[in-house]
Amino acid sequence: MNTIYIISGPAGVGKSTTSKGLAVQFDNSAYIEGDFINHMVIGGYLPPWESEELLSLTWENIADLSINFVQANMNVIIDYVAFPEEVEKFSQKIYAEVKSVEIIYVVLWVDSAELLRRDALRFKEHQMGVRCLELMNDFESKGIDKRFLYNTTYLQPSDLDEIFLNIRENPSFKY
Amino acid sequence: MNTIYIISGPAGVGKSTTSKGLAVQFDNSAYIEGDFINHMVIGGYLPPWESEELLSLTWENIADLSINFVQANMNVIIDYVAFPEEVEKFSQKIYAEVKSVEIIYVVLWVDSAELLRRDALRFKEHQMGVRCLELMNDFESKGIDKRFLYNTTYLQPSDLDEIFLNIRENPSFKY
Repeated sequence: MNTIYIISGPAGVGKSTTSKGLAVQFDNSAYIEGDFINHMVIGGYLPPWESEELLSLTWENIADLSINFVQANMNVIIDYVAFPEEVEKFSQKIYAEVKSVEIIYVVLWVDSAELLRRDALRFKEHQMGVRCLELMNDFESKGIDKRFLYNTTYLQPSDLDEIFLNIRENPSFKY
Repeated sequence: MNTIYIISGPAGVGKSTTSKGLAVQFDNSAYIEGDFINHMVIGGYLPPWESEELLSLTWENIADLSINFVQANMNVIIDYVAFPEEVEKFSQKIYAEVKSVEIIYVVLWVDSAELLRRDALRFKEHQMGVRCLELMNDFESKGIDKRFLYNTTYLQPSDLDEIFLNIRENPSFKY
């Protein structure tokens, strides 16, 4: 059975590194970068926090791509800021069209101080500063089920293999 | 009525510049870079000329994205090496799912010498050298209908507006 991994969390937490590292572990896999899907819109573009319509179009696109990849017998890794209600809608669409698939939802998490530290390590143009912290609040205010949170504050880049194993095997991340 | 523009041609001919420039002309538009869609596959990736299966998966993904964008009332610009038979399959899928849409197919073309010159101007890691010329032969051997060819050998970057107008208005590019 193929699996769709939704790797979420605030900006700067390490979604891309984790997602790409996970994707290369599989013989057959696809990596979907939500930010990139979102930026396919050129004329009339608005950032996701300013347009519900474009955000839901992005999720529709992510879902259709995921369905095609799963039907081609691949595991799918989605790297995007995914809130609980988006994951719920997404999973309904997936289960309606694909019978044999499992969805894993992981919200990478760190202490605020560590998040700011990691954000400062990114390329200048990717740094979000205090907006990272707003995103953390968003997850909490949108009632994230604690079992999907994966606190990586005390994990180092050298612990990535442990992180991959945990994402793949820990039953509390199963959606 | 919305339009899907398929901007094709050999590597190095100017597909990206033309496609991105065209995309920003519209109030509502989306830009789909075929190479990027193709590279979503990580585990088991093969280049399009080595795997018919992955190439047709890429076209399925491009089609599903295009349908979503058109249904969201956007013009779509596809930037990819698109051969006649791929465009035919793609357009059948589109017309089956969307009633009110027009497809434009343009194969940008230049003399061999000019193609090599333009290729040499690209970032080193994007340069394809003589493989550009093989791609030109591929278009010819796959029986491209001459009316879709747009020879830009004597056009300069300053002529881009003329190119955009021609792509949008010239009836011979209508698929």
